Amino acid sequence: MRSKFDNQLKELNDALVFLGSECEDCLTYAMQALVTGQKEMIERAMECEKNTDVKKREIQAMCMRLLQQQQPVAGDLRVISAALRMIIDMERIGDQGSDIAEISNHIDFTKNEYNKLITQMADITIKMLNTAVSSFVRRDTELAATVEKMDDEVDELFLKEKNILVDMMGSGEKTDRKTAEQTLEVLMIAKYFERIGDHTVNIAHSVKTMLNDGKTA
Amino acid sequence: MRSKFDNQLKELNDALVFLGSECEDCLTYAMQALVTGQKEMIERAMECEKNTDVKKREIQAMCMRLLQQQQPVAGDLRVISAALRMIIDMERIGDQGSDIAEISNHIDFTKNEYNKLITQMADITIKMLNTAVSSFVRRDTELAATVEKMDDEVDELFLKEKNILVDMMGSGEKTDRKTAEQTLEVLMIAKYFERIGDHTVNIAHSVKTMLNDGKTA
Repeated sequence: MRSKFDNQLKELNDALVFLGSECEDCLTYAMQALVTGQKEMIERAMECEKNTDVKKREIQAMCMRLLQQQQPVAGDLRVISAALRMIIDMERIGDQGSDIAEISNHIDFTKNEYNKLITQMADITIKMLNTAVSSFVRRDTELAATVEKMDDEVDELFLKEKNILVDMMGSGEKTDRKTAEQTLEVLMIAKYFERIGDHTVNIAHSVKTMLNDGKTA
Repeated sequence: MRSKFDNQLKELNDALVFLGSECEDCLTYAMQALVTGQKEMIERAMECEKNTDVKKREIQAMCMRLLQQQQPVAGDLRVISAALRMIIDMERIGDQGSDIAEISNHIDFTKNEYNKLITQMADITIKMLNTAVSSFVRRDTELAATVEKMDDEVDELFLKEKNILVDMMGSGEKTDRKTAEQTLEVLMIAKYFERIGDHTVNIAHSVKTMLNDGKTA
Protein backbone atom coordinates (compact mmCIF):
# COMPACT_ATOMS: atom_id res chain seq x y z
CA MET A 1 0.00 0.00 0.00
CA ARG A 2 2.70 2.45 1.07
CA SER A 3 4.79 1.58 -1.94
CA LYS A 4 1.89 2.41 -4.28
CA PHE A 5 1.43 5.67 -2.37
CA ASP A 6 5.13 6.48 -2.71
CA ASN A 7 4.86 5.96 -6.45
CA GLN A 8 1.87 8.27 -6.59
CA LEU A 9 3.75 10.93 -4.63
CA LYS A 10 6.68 10.56 -7.02
CA GLU A 11 4.28 11.01 -9.92
CA LEU A 12 2.91 14.17 -8.28
CA ASN A 13 6.45 15.43 -7.79
CA ASP A 14 7.34 14.84 -11.45
CA ALA A 15 4.12 16.48 -12.64
CA LEU A 16 4.89 19.62 -10.59
CA VAL A 17 8.40 19.79 -12.01
CA PHE A 18 6.97 19.43 -15.53
CA LEU A 19 4.43 22.21 -14.88
CA GLY A 20 7.19 24.44 -13.53
CA SER A 21 9.35 23.92 -16.60
CA GLU A 22 6.38 24.57 -18.88
CA CYS A 23 5.86 27.93 -17.11
CA GLU A 24 9.54 28.73 -17.52
CA ASP A 25 9.32 27.97 -21.25
CA CYS A 26 6.24 30.17 -21.50
CA LEU A 27 8.15 33.14 -20.04
CA THR A 28 11.18 32.47 -22.22
CA TYR A 29 9.05 32.41 -25.39
CA ALA A 30 7.12 35.50 -24.26
CA MET A 31 10.39 37.38 -23.86
CA GLN A 32 11.60 36.07 -27.23
CA ALA A 33 8.32 37.25 -28.75
CA LEU A 34 8.98 40.74 -27.37
CA VAL A 35 12.61 40.91 -28.37
CA THR A 36 12.38 39.38 -31.85
CA GLY A 37 8.78 40.25 -32.72
CA GLN A 38 8.45 36.76 -34.26
CA LYS A 39 4.90 35.42 -34.49
CA GLU A 40 6.23 31.92 -33.95
CA MET A 41 7.41 32.85 -30.46
CA ILE A 42 4.00 34.27 -29.59
CA GLU A 43 2.41 30.99 -30.70
CA ARG A 44 4.87 28.96 -28.67
CA ALA A 45 4.14 31.01 -25.53
CA MET A 46 0.38 30.51 -26.09
CA GLU A 47 0.94 26.78 -26.57
CA CYS A 48 2.86 26.58 -23.28
CA GLU A 49 0.05 28.42 -21.52
CA LYS A 50 -2.45 25.85 -22.78
CA ASN A 51 -0.18 23.05 -21.55
CA THR A 52 0.04 24.63 -18.09
CA ASP A 53 -3.76 24.70 -17.92
CA VAL A 54 -4.05 21.03 -18.83
CA LYS A 55 -1.27 20.01 -16.45
CA LYS A 56 -2.75 22.04 -13.61
CA ARG A 57 -6.08 20.22 -13.97
CA GLU A 58 -4.31 16.87 -14.07
CA ILE A 59 -2.38 17.63 -10.89
CA GLN A 60 -5.51 18.91 -9.17
CA ALA A 61 -7.33 15.65 -10.01
CA MET A 62 -4.26 13.67 -8.90
CA CYS A 63 -4.25 15.45 -5.51
CA MET A 64 -7.96 14.86 -5.01
CA ARG A 65 -7.53 11.13 -5.77
CA LEU A 66 -4.62 10.92 -3.32
CA LEU A 67 -6.63 12.67 -0.61
CA GLN A 68 -9.57 10.35 -1.10
CA GLN A 69 -7.80 7.05 -1.65
CA GLN A 70 -4.81 7.39 0.64
CA GLN A 71 -6.15 9.71 3.34
CA PRO A 72 -2.66 11.02 3.94
CA VAL A 73 -1.51 12.61 7.20
CA ALA A 74 1.35 14.82 8.41
CA GLY A 75 4.17 15.29 5.87
CA ASP A 76 2.38 13.62 2.97
CA LEU A 77 -0.68 15.76 3.54
CA ARG A 78 1.48 18.85 3.59
CA VAL A 79 3.03 17.91 0.23
CA ILE A 80 -0.42 17.56 -1.35
CA SER A 81 -1.65 20.77 0.25
CA ALA A 82 1.45 22.61 -1.03
CA ALA A 83 0.95 21.11 -4.49
CA LEU A 84 -2.64 22.40 -4.58
CA ARG A 85 -1.40 25.91 -3.82
CA MET A 86 1.65 25.83 -6.09
CA ILE A 87 -0.31 24.82 -9.19
CA ILE A 88 -2.52 27.91 -8.81
CA ASP A 89 0.52 30.19 -8.84
CA MET A 90 2.09 28.29 -11.71
CA GLU A 91 -1.04 28.46 -13.82
CA ARG A 92 -1.18 32.24 -13.30
CA ILE A 93 2.45 32.60 -14.31
CA GLY A 94 1.48 30.84 -17.54
CA ASP A 95 -1.46 33.23 -17.97
CA GLN A 96 0.76 36.24 -17.50
CA GLY A 97 3.39 34.85 -19.85
CA SER A 98 0.79 34.53 -22.58
CA ASP A 99 -0.53 38.04 -21.77
CA ILE A 100 2.98 39.40 -22.32
CA ALA A 101 3.32 37.48 -25.59
CA GLU A 102 -0.02 38.86 -26.70
CA ILE A 103 1.10 42.45 -26.10
CA SER A 104 4.17 41.80 -28.26
CA ASN A 105 1.69 41.56 -31.15
CA HIS A 106 1.05 45.28 -31.06
CA ILE A 107 4.13 46.99 -29.73
CA ASP A 108 7.51 47.45 -31.30
CA PHE A 109 9.74 46.49 -28.44
CA THR A 110 12.90 46.16 -30.51
CA LYS A 111 13.44 49.89 -30.95
CA ASN A 112 12.75 51.01 -27.44
CA GLU A 113 15.20 52.21 -24.86
CA TYR A 114 13.11 50.78 -22.04
CA ASN A 115 13.64 47.16 -23.01
CA LYS A 116 16.82 46.77 -20.95
CA LEU A 117 15.07 46.74 -17.57
CA ILE A 118 12.25 44.52 -18.86
CA THR A 119 14.83 41.99 -20.09
CA GLN A 120 16.43 42.06 -16.64
CA MET A 121 13.04 41.51 -14.99
CA ALA A 122 12.41 38.54 -17.28
CA ASP A 123 15.82 37.00 -16.55
CA ILE A 124 15.39 37.32 -12.78
CA THR A 125 11.80 36.03 -12.65
CA ILE A 126 12.72 33.00 -14.79
CA LYS A 127 15.62 32.33 -12.40
CA MET A 128 13.28 32.77 -9.41
CA LEU A 129 10.82 30.26 -10.82
CA ASN A 130 13.61 27.79 -11.52
CA THR A 131 14.96 28.23 -7.98
CA ALA A 132 11.51 27.85 -6.40
CA VAL A 133 10.91 24.58 -8.26
CA SER A 134 14.42 23.35 -7.35
CA SER A 135 13.75 24.14 -3.69
CA PHE A 136 10.65 21.93 -3.95
CA VAL A 137 12.54 19.08 -5.64
CA ARG A 138 15.41 19.22 -3.14
CA ARG A 139 13.16 19.97 -0.15
CA ASP A 140 15.48 22.90 0.57
CA THR A 141 14.12 25.67 2.82
CA GLU A 142 17.19 27.86 2.44
CA LEU A 143 17.00 27.75 -1.32
CA ALA A 144 13.31 28.67 -1.12
CA ALA A 145 14.24 31.66 1.05
CA THR A 146 16.57 33.05 -1.63
CA VAL A 147 13.59 33.53 -3.97
CA GLU A 148 12.21 36.23 -1.69
CA LYS A 149 15.46 38.19 -1.87
CA MET A 150 15.48 38.05 -5.65
CA ASP A 151 11.97 39.49 -5.65
CA ASP A 152 13.25 42.70 -4.03
CA GLU A 153 15.31 43.23 -7.18
CA VAL A 154 12.26 42.70 -9.39
CA ASP A 155 10.25 45.22 -7.37
CA GLU A 156 13.08 47.73 -7.65
CA LEU A 157 13.33 47.22 -11.42
CA PHE A 158 9.58 47.75 -11.73
CA LEU A 159 9.81 51.11 -9.96
CA LYS A 160 12.80 52.13 -12.09
CA GLU A 161 10.94 51.20 -15.26
CA LYS A 162 7.88 53.17 -14.15
CA ASN A 163 10.08 56.18 -13.50
CA ILE A 164 11.65 55.93 -16.95
CA LEU A 165 8.19 55.81 -18.51
CA VAL A 166 7.01 58.79 -16.45
CA ASP A 167 10.12 60.71 -17.52
CA MET A 168 9.49 59.84 -21.17
CA MET A 169 5.84 60.84 -21.10
CA GLY A 170 6.22 63.83 -18.82
CA SER A 171 9.24 65.40 -20.48
CA GLY A 172 7.15 68.35 -21.65
CA GLU A 173 7.49 67.17 -25.25
CA LYS A 174 4.46 66.50 -27.41
CA THR A 175 3.43 62.85 -27.44
CA ASP A 176 1.52 61.13 -30.22
CA ARG A 177 -1.12 58.48 -29.68
CA LYS A 178 1.09 55.59 -30.74
CA THR A 179 3.87 56.49 -28.32
CA ALA A 180 1.34 56.91 -25.50
CA GLU A 181 -0.14 53.50 -26.25
CA GLN A 182 3.28 51.82 -26.33
CA THR A 183 4.25 53.41 -23.04
CA LEU A 184 1.14 52.11 -21.30
CA GLU A 185 1.69 48.64 -22.79
CA VAL A 186 5.29 48.58 -21.58
CA LEU A 187 4.07 49.50 -18.09
CA MET A 188 1.68 46.54 -18.30
CA ILE A 189 4.53 44.21 -19.27
CA ALA A 190 6.62 45.45 -16.35
CA LYS A 191 3.62 44.95 -14.06
CA TYR A 192 3.15 41.38 -15.34
CA PHE A 193 6.77 40.54 -14.54
CA GLU A 194 6.38 42.11 -11.10
CA ARG A 195 3.32 39.88 -10.51
CA ILE A 196 5.19 36.83 -11.82
CA GLY A 197 7.83 37.61 -9.21
CA ASP A 198 5.10 37.62 -6.54
CA HIS A 199 3.77 34.27 -7.74
CA THR A 200 7.21 32.66 -7.54
CA VAL A 201 7.54 34.02 -4.00
CA ASN A 202 4.22 32.34 -3.22
CA ILE A 203 5.55 29.06 -4.64
CA ALA A 204 8.70 29.32 -2.52
CA HIS A 205 6.51 30.16 0.47
CA SER A 206 4.42 27.03 -0.14
CA VAL A 207 7.63 24.97 -0.20
CA LYS A 208 8.76 26.52 3.10
CA THR A 209 5.37 25.84 4.71
CA MET A 210 5.44 22.27 3.46
CA LEU A 211 8.86 21.70 5.06
CA ASN A 212 8.12 23.69 8.18
CA ASP A 213 6.78 20.80 10.26
CA GLY A 214 3.07 21.32 10.23
CA LYS A 215 2.87 25.07 10.57
CA THR A 216 0.69 26.67 7.94
CA ALA A 217 1.47 30.04 6.43
CA MET B 1 -18.65 12.12 15.11
CA ARG B 2 -20.58 13.28 12.05
CA SER B 3 -22.31 15.96 14.10
CA LYS B 4 -18.94 17.35 15.23
CA PHE B 5 -17.80 17.28 11.61
CA ASP B 6 -20.96 19.10 10.52
CA ASN B 7 -20.24 21.79 13.09
CA GLN B 8 -16.71 22.13 11.79
CA LEU B 9 -17.95 22.45 8.22
CA LYS B 10 -20.42 25.11 9.37
CA GLU B 11 -17.54 26.93 11.05
CA LEU B 12 -15.55 26.75 7.81
CA ASN B 13 -18.56 28.08 5.91
CA ASP B 14 -18.94 31.03 8.30
CA ALA B 15 -15.23 31.80 8.19
CA LEU B 16 -15.30 31.94 4.37
CA VAL B 17 -18.29 34.28 4.43
CA PHE B 18 -16.47 36.48 6.94
CA LEU B 19 -13.34 36.55 4.76
CA GLY B 20 -15.46 37.43 1.73
CA SER B 21 -17.10 40.34 3.51
CA GLU B 22 -13.73 41.57 4.78
CA CYS B 23 -12.50 41.64 1.14
CA GLU B 24 -15.62 43.54 0.12
CA ASP B 25 -15.01 46.11 2.88
CA CYS B 26 -11.40 46.43 1.74
CA LEU B 27 -12.50 47.32 -1.79
CA THR B 28 -15.17 49.72 -0.54
CA TYR B 29 -12.67 51.57 1.66
CA ALA B 30 -10.08 51.59 -1.14
CA MET B 31 -12.61 53.23 -3.44
CA GLN B 32 -13.57 55.69 -0.69
CA ALA B 33 -9.89 56.48 -0.24
CA LEU B 34 -9.63 57.28 -3.94
CA VAL B 35 -12.81 59.34 -4.13
CA THR B 36 -12.48 61.30 -0.89
CA GLY B 37 -8.70 61.31 -0.49
CA GLN B 38 -9.21 60.70 3.23
CA LYS B 39 -6.28 59.10 5.06
CA GLU B 40 -8.71 57.32 7.36
CA MET B 41 -10.13 55.36 4.44
CA ILE B 42 -6.64 54.28 3.38
CA GLU B 43 -6.00 53.04 6.91
CA ARG B 44 -9.28 51.16 6.99
CA ALA B 45 -8.48 49.43 3.70
CA MET B 46 -5.04 48.45 5.06
CA GLU B 47 -6.65 47.16 8.25
CA CYS B 48 -9.06 45.00 6.22
CA GLU B 49 -6.16 43.62 4.21
CA LYS B 50 -4.42 42.58 7.43
CA ASN B 51 -7.63 40.91 8.61
CA THR B 52 -7.93 38.97 5.36
CA ASP B 53 -4.38 37.66 5.84
CA VAL B 54 -5.11 36.48 9.37
CA LYS B 55 -8.43 34.93 8.38
CA LYS B 56 -6.89 33.18 5.39
CA ARG B 57 -4.30 31.52 7.63
CA GLU B 58 -6.98 30.48 10.12
CA ILE B 59 -9.08 28.90 7.37
CA GLN B 60 -6.05 27.15 5.90
CA ALA B 61 -5.23 25.65 9.31
CA MET B 62 -8.90 24.74 9.77
CA CYS B 63 -8.93 22.88 6.41
CA MET B 64 -5.73 21.01 7.24
CA ARG B 65 -7.17 19.91 10.60
CA LEU B 66 -10.37 18.75 8.90
CA LEU B 67 -8.39 16.79 6.30
CA GLN B 68 -6.28 15.12 8.97
CA GLN B 69 -8.88 14.46 11.65
CA GLN B 70 -11.96 13.73 9.57
CA GLN B 71 -10.43 12.28 6.41
CA PRO B 72 -13.40 13.54 4.40
CA VAL B 73 -14.51 12.05 1.10
CA ALA B 74 -16.71 13.06 -1.86
CA GLY B 75 -18.76 16.23 -1.30
CA ASP B 76 -17.12 17.19 2.00
CA LEU B 77 -13.68 16.84 0.47
CA ARG B 78 -14.75 19.02 -2.43
CA VAL B 79 -15.93 21.74 -0.04
CA ILE B 80 -12.56 21.77 1.72
CA SER B 81 -10.67 21.69 -1.56
CA ALA B 82 -12.78 24.60 -2.85
CA ALA B 83 -12.19 26.50 0.39
CA LEU B 84 -8.42 26.11 0.00
CA ARG B 85 -8.61 27.61 -3.48
CA MET B 86 -11.10 30.36 -2.65
CA ILE B 87 -9.06 31.76 0.23
CA ILE B 88 -6.09 32.29 -2.09
CA ASP B 89 -8.20 34.41 -4.44
CA MET B 90 -9.78 36.27 -1.55
CA GLU B 91 -6.44 37.09 0.03
CA ARG B 92 -5.22 38.50 -3.30
CA ILE B 93 -8.33 40.63 -3.63
CA GLY B 94 -7.42 42.06 -0.23
CA ASP B 95 -3.85 42.68 -1.41
CA GLN B 96 -5.06 44.50 -4.49
CA GLY B 97 -7.56 46.54 -2.48
CA SER B 98 -4.75 47.76 -0.25
CA ASP B 99 -2.57 48.44 -3.31
CA ILE B 100 -5.32 50.67 -4.69
CA ALA B 101 -5.68 52.45 -1.35
CA GLU B 102 -1.93 52.99 -1.28
CA ILE B 103 -1.97 54.65 -4.72
CA SER B 104 -4.66 57.05 -3.49
CA ASN B 105 -1.94 58.46 -1.24
CA HIS B 106 -0.20 60.06 -4.18
CA ILE B 107 -2.75 60.81 -6.84
CA ASP B 108 -5.51 63.36 -6.90
CA PHE B 109 -8.38 61.27 -8.12
CA THR B 110 -11.10 63.75 -7.24
CA LYS B 111 -10.34 66.15 -10.07
CA ASN B 112 -9.93 63.64 -12.84
CA GLU B 113 -12.29 62.92 -15.67
CA TYR B 114 -11.27 59.27 -15.74
CA ASN B 115 -12.74 58.41 -12.36
CA LYS B 116 -16.17 57.55 -13.76
CA LEU B 117 -15.12 54.26 -15.34
CA ILE B 118 -12.98 53.30 -12.34
CA THR B 119 -15.97 53.85 -10.05
CA GLN B 120 -18.03 51.61 -12.32
CA MET B 121 -15.31 48.94 -12.23
CA ALA B 122 -15.26 49.12 -8.43
CA ASP B 123 -19.06 48.82 -8.19
CA ILE B 124 -19.20 45.81 -10.49
CA THR B 125 -16.28 43.93 -8.91
CA ILE B 126 -17.73 44.43 -5.41
CA LYS B 127 -21.04 43.08 -6.70
CA MET B 128 -19.23 40.15 -8.36
CA LEU B 129 -17.49 39.27 -5.11
CA ASN B 130 -20.74 39.47 -3.19
CA THR B 131 -22.46 37.25 -5.78
CA ALA B 132 -19.62 34.71 -5.77
CA VAL B 133 -19.77 34.40 -1.97
CA SER B 134 -23.59 34.15 -2.09
CA SER B 135 -23.33 31.37 -4.68
CA PHE B 136 -21.10 29.52 -2.22
CA VAL B 137 -23.47 30.05 0.73
CA ARG B 138 -26.53 28.99 -1.27
CA ARG B 139 -24.69 26.26 -3.20
CA ASP B 140 -26.06 27.85 -6.36
CA THR B 141 -24.29 26.98 -9.64
CA GLU B 142 -26.41 29.34 -11.73
CA LEU B 143 -25.64 32.27 -9.48
CA ALA B 144 -21.93 31.42 -9.71
CA ALA B 145 -22.23 31.43 -13.52
CA THR B 146 -23.53 35.04 -13.52
CA VAL B 147 -20.19 36.21 -12.09
CA GLU B 148 -18.45 35.29 -15.32
CA LYS B 149 -20.83 37.43 -17.36
CA MET B 150 -20.26 40.42 -15.11
CA ASP B 151 -16.53 40.05 -15.69
CA ASP B 152 -16.98 40.74 -19.42
CA GLU B 153 -18.22 44.19 -18.41
CA VAL B 154 -15.16 44.76 -16.22
CA ASP B 155 -12.83 43.75 -19.06
CA GLU B 156 -14.64 46.11 -21.41
CA LEU B 157 -14.39 48.99 -18.92
CA PHE B 158 -10.67 48.33 -18.54
CA LEU B 159 -10.13 48.64 -22.29
CA LYS B 160 -12.24 51.81 -22.41
CA GLU B 161 -10.25 53.31 -19.56
CA LYS B 162 -6.97 52.43 -21.25
CA ASN B 163 -8.18 54.11 -24.43
CA ILE B 164 -9.14 57.26 -22.54
CA LEU B 165 -5.68 57.38 -20.97
CA VAL B 166 -3.99 56.83 -24.35
CA ASP B 167 -6.13 59.63 -25.81
CA MET B 168 -5.19 61.95 -22.95
CA MET B 169 -1.48 61.24 -23.17
CA GLY B 170 -1.29 61.02 -26.94
CA SER B 171 -3.33 64.09 -27.78
CA GLY B 172 -0.25 65.83 -29.15
CA GLU B 173 -0.33 68.27 -26.22
CA LYS B 174 2.67 68.73 -23.97
CA THR B 175 2.49 66.62 -20.83
CA ASP B 176 4.19 67.41 -17.53
CA ARG B 177 5.74 64.81 -15.25
CA LYS B 178 2.94 64.92 -12.69
CA THR B 179 0.22 64.30 -15.28
CA ALA B 180 2.23 61.43 -16.75
CA GLU B 181 2.66 59.87 -13.32
CA GLN B 182 -1.03 60.18 -12.50
CA THR B 183 -2.00 58.62 -15.82
CA LEU B 184 0.21 55.58 -15.22
CA GLU B 185 -1.15 55.23 -11.67
CA VAL B 186 -4.74 55.34 -12.92
CA LEU B 187 -3.89 52.61 -15.42
CA MET B 188 -2.56 50.56 -12.50
CA ILE B 189 -5.79 51.07 -10.56
CA ALA B 190 -7.85 49.98 -13.57
CA LYS B 191 -5.60 46.94 -13.95
CA TYR B 192 -6.06 46.05 -10.25
CA PHE B 193 -9.84 46.11 -10.65
CA GLU B 194 -9.56 43.99 -13.78
CA ARG B 195 -7.50 41.45 -11.78
CA ILE B 196 -9.99 41.58 -8.91
CA GLY B 197 -12.66 40.69 -11.46
CA ASP B 198 -10.54 37.67 -12.51
CA HIS B 199 -10.15 36.57 -8.90
CA THR B 200 -13.90 36.68 -8.29
CA VAL B 201 -14.39 34.59 -11.44
CA ASN B 202 -11.94 32.08 -9.96
CA ILE B 203 -13.98 32.02 -6.73
CA ALA B 204 -17.19 31.42 -8.68
CA HIS B 205 -15.39 28.73 -10.66
CA SER B 206 -14.32 27.01 -7.43
CA VAL B 207 -17.95 27.04 -6.29
CA LYS B 208 -19.07 25.50 -9.58
CA THR B 209 -16.38 22.80 -9.36
CA MET B 210 -17.37 22.06 -5.78
CA LEU B 211 -21.01 21.54 -6.79
CA ASN B 212 -20.22 19.77 -10.02
CA ASP B 213 -20.22 16.23 -8.63
CA GLY B 214 -16.58 15.33 -8.44
CA LYS B 215 -15.27 16.84 -11.64
CA THR B 216 -12.29 19.09 -11.09
CA ALA B 217 -11.75 22.22 -13.10
